[in-house]
Amino acid sequence: MEFKIKTPTLLIDKKRCVENIRRMAVKAKESSIQLRPHCKTHCSLQVARWLKEEAGVNCITVSSLTMAKYFSVEWKDITVAFPVNILELETIQALLDDGVRLKLLVENIEAIEYLQHNLKGDSIIDFYVKIDVGYGRTGIPAENLEGIDTLLGQADDCDRTRFYGFLTHAGHTYHATSRDEIYRIHNTSKELLQGLKERYISRYPHLILSMGDTPSCSVVEAKFWQGIDEMRPGNFVFYDLEQAYVGSCNFENIAVVVACPIVAKHADRRELTLYGGGVHLSKDRLVQEDSKNEKRKTILYGRVVENSTNNNLEWGKVLDGFYIRSLSQEHGIAVVPANQDFESFKIGDIIKILPVHSCMTADVMKKGYITTSRELITRMRD
Amino acid sequence: MEFKIKTPTLLIDKKRCVENIRRMAVKAKESSIQLRPHCKTHCSLQVARWLKEEAGVNCITVSSLTMAKYFSVEWKDITVAFPVNILELETIQALLDDGVRLKLLVENIEAIEYLQHNLKGDSIIDFYVKIDVGYGRTGIPAENLEGIDTLLGQADDCDRTRFYGFLTHAGHTYHATSRDEIYRIHNTSKELLQGLKERYISRYPHLILSMGDTPSCSVVEAKFWQGIDEMRPGNFVFYDLEQAYVGSCNFENIAVVVACPIVAKHADRRELTLYGGGVHLSKDRLVQEDSKNEKRKTILYGRVVENSTNNNLEWGKVLDGFYIRSLSQEHGIAVVPANQDFESFKIGDIIKILPVHSCMTADVMKKGYITTSRELITRMRD
Repeated sequence: MEFKIKTPTLLIDKKRCVENIRRMAVKAKESSIQLRPHCKTHCSLQVARWLKEEAGVNCITVSSLTMAKYFSVEWKDITVAFPVNILELETIQALLDDGVRLKLLVENIEAIEYLQHNLKGDSIIDFYVKIDVGYGRTGIPAENLEGIDTLLGQADDCDRTRFYGFLTHAGHTYHATSRDEIYRIHNTSKELLQGLKERYISRYPHLILSMGDTPSCSVVEAKFWQGIDEMRPGNFVFYDLEQAYVGSCNFENIAVVVACPIVAKHADRRELTLYGGGVHLSKDRLVQEDSKNEKRKTILYGRVVENSTNNNLEWGKVLDGFYIRSLSQEHGIAVVPANQDFESFKIGDIIKILPVHSCMTADVMKKGYITTSRELITRMRD
Repeated sequence: MEFKIKTPTLLIDKKRCVENIRRMAVKAKESSIQLRPHCKTHCSLQVARWLKEEAGVNCITVSSLTMAKYFSVEWKDITVAFPVNILELETIQALLDDGVRLKLLVENIEAIEYLQHNLKGDSIIDFYVKIDVGYGRTGIPAENLEGIDTLLGQADDCDRTRFYGFLTHAGHTYHATSRDEIYRIHNTSKELLQGLKERYISRYPHLILSMGDTPSCSVVEAKFWQGIDEMRPGNFVFYDLEQAYVGSCNFENIAVVVACPIVAKHADRRELTLYGGGVHLSKDRLVQEDSKNEKRKTILYGRVVENSTNNNLEWGKVLDGFYIRSLSQEHGIAVVPANQDFESFKIGDIIKILPVHSCMTADVMKKGYITTSRELITRMRD
């Protein structure tokens, strides 16, 4: 049956995903590091199978207990890389009872004591201590040795929880403006974690170090990962404009687009109104500085790629100057650059857009189609 | 059974919704105007019933054909306030065949000719001409009389489409900084539409004028609505911070919050890490200027309200200086002001947040609970 795009549709280029997965797996192998990919971007059992099939991945990361439960159908070694939410004790217990080797994140004694007092029977749970290496979102600052000492000391009194290692997310790499800056952040983060390992290794001989942001996982060469035990890139399966701008990938590595119908044309201002808004792309945006004029900034919500025909689900290269300047709930406004023939765009044509942040786009779209097989890819639903 | 919030949860204060609905219905009645509320914010048959029950509403607005189909189960007079997407002809035909009095938006002859050639049997469809009164998103500029003349002239040759009236969305009121500015935009929009009515009323004696943005529907007094035939406010049922800042409502009128568990505390910087991120609140944000220092801006993704107890679903007044400064996929970071006792916040406590943009928040949350009855409110699913 012919596959016809009629409404905003998420398209997934499986070939690109598989290449992205293989490339990361090679790096992990070269640096003898455990690859524990984060599944929050796609949040799909189907996509997660590619990790298993293409790279032999046997453990994953998720960002909520709801997600852990969803993935536990096929995965039995799961890290929840989010400070444990003690209100979800029942889900934690159910996952443990189900034989999942669950690892939680902890950064305060309240959570550990709550688990100690409320987990049932013989349940024992592994926990990482979440370390803040400078991102400033959450975690115990790496320099706060007193805080870490106290937490681990108090945790030692709890026999239902077991210290597994130190984990960090150096999310400030997302705002890096050069590869050098990503390297600098990565090296600082690594040194901070290694300092902690030296301090605690005699007390906890099995402790591991886990690092996770997609920019450093993508950019930093394998040899500079040595000394770290585990990497948790997430966004790399799909990538997106934000990652391309930060240097994690090329535009050609981006494996998802949102295909949107043209519903109106504005020749006077060379703009197209698209059926495709914030509920399809999400409201994440990029601010591009103009190198010649520092006051001039372009805000963009997506970039348009070459589209051979409307019913071919594949797409080509990113088009210079062709971008989404604004989004409302259902409308997207595309700016058509002078190098494009405006008249060639017709009402009912399909425009394909690279998203700014694929994690958020995949979340709002909820489902997508593989470009080649037309297979429907679904996502966890609440 | 006790209702316990464990994960980010959308709470809906039905009493506030009903008050918001009644207030708008009174204004519509006072100005003898048809109230055709936009249902895209809640996108819920259950909430839409309150419009019927509390204000006798018998016609609605939606922003996609998918939404029209969803609401057609209970509503038979539906305007799709979005430029018609000709790729969805089948849905249009099915709605007409189902007896729905469907009204579409048109701003180019291609769409009208497509409907003329492809609608089946005796189908006749009403269309509004979408007019741009200065917002600059989409529509034919009100001043482009030649364009409007041409479109209506060509449409007269098509017997399957019938001109219903002029429709506009003065979305620039969302960026107004005073009530005066909302009045100015409203008056200009009204004059532009009335000019069009005068020009065409002899040819189309039944043509109506339809206006729609929530700020002017909320702020502008009934008497200044006279001369307009239909109003289409949407966001007013829930309202949100954006509407409160623009002057459409008070904080007390906002009828939704997202309740989020505290998962970590950072006493040094007086911040709380919440389980509640972009997939719960959406990434829409407000930029607040500092009146004393123009370089100093606060970006906020939500504001915290008074919360009597964790299991009471209701909430109190908005708390000064207590706001969400950043969101990632699942994390929210709340800034705790000096006037709050930081130590009183415990891991596992619930924080309730007024969203910046309830349309987007309701879209990502997908479901919510009524504070008093605990009734589950669901939303259209794709």
